[in-house]
Amino acid sequence: MTEHQGFVLWFTGLSGSGKSTLARMIEPELRARGCKVEILDGDEVRENLSKGLGFSKEDRDTNIRRIGYVAKLLSRNGVVTITAAISPYREVRDQCRRMVRNFVEVYTHCTIEELTRRDVKGLYEKALRGEIKNFTGISDPYEAPSNPEVLVDSSKETAEQSLQRIVAFLEAKQLIPAATAAAQR
Amino acid sequence: MTEHQGFVLWFTGLSGSGKSTLARMIEPELRARGCKVEILDGDEVRENLSKGLGFSKEDRDTNIRRIGYVAKLLSRNGVVTITAAISPYREVRDQCRRMVRNFVEVYTHCTIEELTRRDVKGLYEKALRGEIKNFTGISDPYEAPSNPEVLVDSSKETAEQSLQRIVAFLEAKQLIPAATAAAQR
Repeated sequence: MTEHQGFVLWFTGLSGSGKSTLARMIEPELRARGCKVEILDGDEVRENLSKGLGFSKEDRDTNIRRIGYVAKLLSRNGVVTITAAISPYREVRDQCRRMVRNFVEVYTHCTIEELTRRDVKGLYEKALRGEIKNFTGISDPYEAPSNPEVLVDSSKETAEQSLQRIVAFLEAKQLIPAATAAAQR
Repeated sequence: MTEHQGFVLWFTGLSGSGKSTLARMIEPELRARGCKVEILDGDEVRENLSKGLGFSKEDRDTNIRRIGYVAKLLSRNGVVTITAAISPYREVRDQCRRMVRNFVEVYTHCTIEELTRRDVKGLYEKALRGEIKNFTGISDPYEAPSNPEVLVDSSKETAEQSLQRIVAFLEAKQLIPAATAAAQR
């Protein structure tokens, strides 16, 4: 098997904006091209690396730095590492960017109105009623990336369209082989 | 480059018994055979994954589980992952063993008498004077592995001899290519 270079595909965005959905959709695309892939999802990482931490800025930053540390270890060993935590603060995201060689930030933009309308888990309704403290976008800040590598918008495009744009970016940057080249192997 | 299988080389033993020394000695041996290697050293991991945790049994176990989680992610992607934390409790070490496919436990045995005699960092003297709480082997328990894959003893053999025995075990289990095969590539 050809050895691929690792990189970090760092999703950031509000709860329900499509981070985990896109992470799970892109995984088989990457594997089909011979990449090794790990997904560090927000909930799983909190369970395994950050149990006991809360949702203050300090605790959130600590959690994100831990994800960044693990992403650094994996990606420098050739693993495509996908993170899908809200990661609301710009400064700590940029710290993570500086820790790894190839950092691709994907901002899953979606308006609060649209997220509240969908509200798959019923969380926005609760947050708007003041029942969830530190809920990002409602009662806690979200600092959007100023210059993400990819910006997707689930209120304007389908998940499939977002996926294809992310894949196109990775191909253009030669972080993954083009689909045709992959198919020929 | 040939793709090697990952495994976890889990050192356990008292402070000063040779875990980190052997971890650093074996790294170039493994790289020379084409392995990817990461060392998760006790202090570095505490800084990056477990800041805020103390040295109670619960906190130690949490720290070790986090090391096990990261070792699982790395090793299943073909990385030889070397851990060098004291990891004093048997049960949580065995939990880590069950989490990964190839787990090689190396017990760096050394008597307290010998460690106290050497006492490179002056820690044993302090611990014996009661100045360090929760010091493994003095004021905190150390549960030796009942059936480690490799047992080394720095009071009876040189570090080079210990190293060669670990390498021989890994070769015998075909976790790494033999030195001759590696040299021929």
